[in-house]
Amino acid sequence: MSTESGIVKFAILGTARIATKVGKAIHTVEGAELELIASRRLRNAQAWQAEHGANNAVEGYESALSHPDVQAVYIPLPPSMHKEWTIKAAEAGKHVLCEKPPALNSAEVEEMLAACRANGVQFIDGTMWSHTPRAQDMKAILTGGQLGKLRRVVSAFSIQMPDTPEQHRYIAELGGGALYDIGWYCVRAALWAFDSVPTHVFASATYHRGVDNNATAIMWFEDNRTATFDCGYDLTRRKWLEVVGESGNLVCDDFLSPWDLTKQRFWTHDNQGVATEHQSQSVVQEASMIESMVNIIRTKELNTYWPQIALDNQRVIDALILAAKEGVKVEVK
Amino acid sequence: MSTESGIVKFAILGTARIATKVGKAIHTVEGAELELIASRRLRNAQAWQAEHGANNAVEGYESALSHPDVQAVYIPLPPSMHKEWTIKAAEAGKHVLCEKPPALNSAEVEEMLAACRANGVQFIDGTMWSHTPRAQDMKAILTGGQLGKLRRVVSAFSIQMPDTPEQHRYIAELGGGALYDIGWYCVRAALWAFDSVPTHVFASATYHRGVDNNATAIMWFEDNRTATFDCGYDLTRRKWLEVVGESGNLVCDDFLSPWDLTKQRFWTHDNQGVATEHQSQSVVQEASMIESMVNIIRTKELNTYWPQIALDNQRVIDALILAAKEGVKVEVK
Repeated sequence: MSTESGIVKFAILGTARIATKVGKAIHTVEGAELELIASRRLRNAQAWQAEHGANNAVEGYESALSHPDVQAVYIPLPPSMHKEWTIKAAEAGKHVLCEKPPALNSAEVEEMLAACRANGVQFIDGTMWSHTPRAQDMKAILTGGQLGKLRRVVSAFSIQMPDTPEQHRYIAELGGGALYDIGWYCVRAALWAFDSVPTHVFASATYHRGVDNNATAIMWFEDNRTATFDCGYDLTRRKWLEVVGESGNLVCDDFLSPWDLTKQRFWTHDNQGVATEHQSQSVVQEASMIESMVNIIRTKELNTYWPQIALDNQRVIDALILAAKEGVKVEVK
Repeated sequence: MSTESGIVKFAILGTARIATKVGKAIHTVEGAELELIASRRLRNAQAWQAEHGANNAVEGYESALSHPDVQAVYIPLPPSMHKEWTIKAAEAGKHVLCEKPPALNSAEVEEMLAACRANGVQFIDGTMWSHTPRAQDMKAILTGGQLGKLRRVVSAFSIQMPDTPEQHRYIAELGGGALYDIGWYCVRAALWAFDSVPTHVFASATYHRGVDNNATAIMWFEDNRTATFDCGYDLTRRKWLEVVGESGNLVCDDFLSPWDLTKQRFWTHDNQGVATEHQSQSVVQEASMIESMVNIIRTKELNTYWPQIALDNQRVIDALILAAKEGVKVEVK
C-alpha cells in the first residue's frame, strides 16, 4: 500500500482545464503522486497523460475508483456530477477533493459528507486560497485583535466569461451560474473571516440562459456583522477582499489567486488610513490544497473543518440563489 | 457692490466645526472674501472672528442675510435648519452653499431650489470632493472609454463617531443619521459615475437613538448597472470608491478627502490587474468648492448641474431611508 511508503497517490476524474493546474501541483508536492488520470474516453486520458504526466491513464471514472493504490481523488467535473462521484469515491474508500461548488444544493452535500463519514474518508472542496500561507497570515491578524471587533466583509469576484458552447458555467443543468461558481469564494471569505454562518441573506441577480451571470449579495451575521459582495461573468477581472473592524481593516486585492505569484500580499490599515504591507510565502495555491489533503491522510486523522465549511458555504449559496430568484431577504437554512 | 471689484463676499451662518475649514478656504481663494461670521450669540461670532478671521461678526443669521455686500452664504447648520435658511437666503438674493444633506427630504429640497430659481441665485450642496481636480480627472477616465462600459460602483464611508450630547448626527429631529450624513457621499459617487439616478434601492440599517448608525445599500440603475455601499459611525475610518467597467476599474482609497493632501491619487487597473497610479493636483477641497461658487457668481450664469444632483442625491437618500425602515426594495420617487 502506498501509505506505507508515505506517498499519497491521487487520481483525477476528468480532464477539465482546472485538472491541469491541480495535476501539475500534485507533481510538485512532496509526498504526493499522480497515480492516474481518468477520462470517459481513453484517448483523452492518454493525451492528458502524455502532456501533463501521470502513472496511468484509464477509461472511465469507475476504473479510477477501483484502482487499489489510489488513496485520494480530485473531482473537477461539473457540479451536477459531484454528488454521484463523491459518494462513489467515498464508498471505494478514497479521500475526496471536489471542485466547488461541492453540489447543486446543501441536501446533496449532506449526503456526500455522510458517505465520507461512513467510509472514514476526508472531504475537502476546491476553495484553494483558503489552504495557503497567506490565508493563514491574514487569519492570524483577523483573530489577533489589532483591527478591533470584526464587523464587515466586502468582496468582489468578477471575470469576463464568454458564453461558448462547451462552457458548463452557462448551463443550469450542469450547475452553472456565477453564485455557484465564483460567488462561492466571496461567501467563503465571509464565513472564514467571521467564523460564522449568516442568519439571513439578500441577493439580486441578472440571468443569461437561465443562470445568474451577475449577482449582488448581502449576508447578515449574528452580533451585528454584515458581509456584501458582487460576482459576475460580465465585468473586468476583480478578486478583492476587505475585512473591516472597528479600529482597522485588512485589504487583499487578489485573495483568491495572486496577480503575481512572487507577491502574495495584503495590507492592513489603521484608523488614520496608514497602510502596512504584508507579504506571505510564495506558493502555488493548488499545491497548498494538495498538501492539506496529504497531511490529513498521512496523520490518519480526519479534519472536520473542511467538510463543515463546505456544507455551510453551500447552505449560504442555496439561500442566495433563492433570495435572488424571489427578490427578498431569506433565512439561511 | 462687491461684484464690481470682482471679489465675492461670503457670510457663514453658524460656527459649526466644518465652518472653520470652509472659512479658512475662503481666505485662500482668490476672488473670495469672508465678509462675516454670524452666530446666534454675538460673542460666539466674535470669538470665531478673532480666531479665524472675518471682516465682521454679527448676531443672528438674519443679520447676515440683510448685509448688502454679502453675495453668498455658507450654511453649516444642522440639516433640519437648511430649508428655512436656504429659502431666506435666496429671498435675500444671496447665493447658497449649503452643507449636505441639503434638507430632511426631497420635497424640502424642491422648495429650496424653487426659491433659488425664483430669486436667480445659485444652489450648491456641500459635497466638496465633487468640485476637485481629482474628481474631474477621474471623471475624464470614466467617460474616456478605457474601462469599457461602466456597470458597477462600490464604495464605503465609515468613521468612529462617538455619541456625545452636542453631536447632532445622533439626533433624529436635527437630521441625524449615517445615510443622510455620510451615505450621502456614496450615493453621490454613484450618481456622478453613472450620470444617472437609480430606479430602485434596497437598504438595511442598524439604529442608535432612533437614527441609522450603520447601513448597507444597493442601488439599481437602468441599463444593467448597480451600485452598493456601506456607511457607518461605528467602524474604522474608510472612504473608498471603486468604479467597475467591463474591461477595467478605477479605485480611489480616499475619494471624499485625501488621506494625504500632497498625494491626491487614484488608480486604474486593466483586466489583468495591472495598476496605473494617477496623481491629481494637490488642492484643499473646501477651496475647490468655494472656487466653483466664485466662478459661477463671476460669470453671472447659474449652473443647473449642482442643484439637480443635490435634489437627485436627496431623492435617493429618501428612498434608502424608507427601504431600510421597511426592509424592502423601493422605487426612487
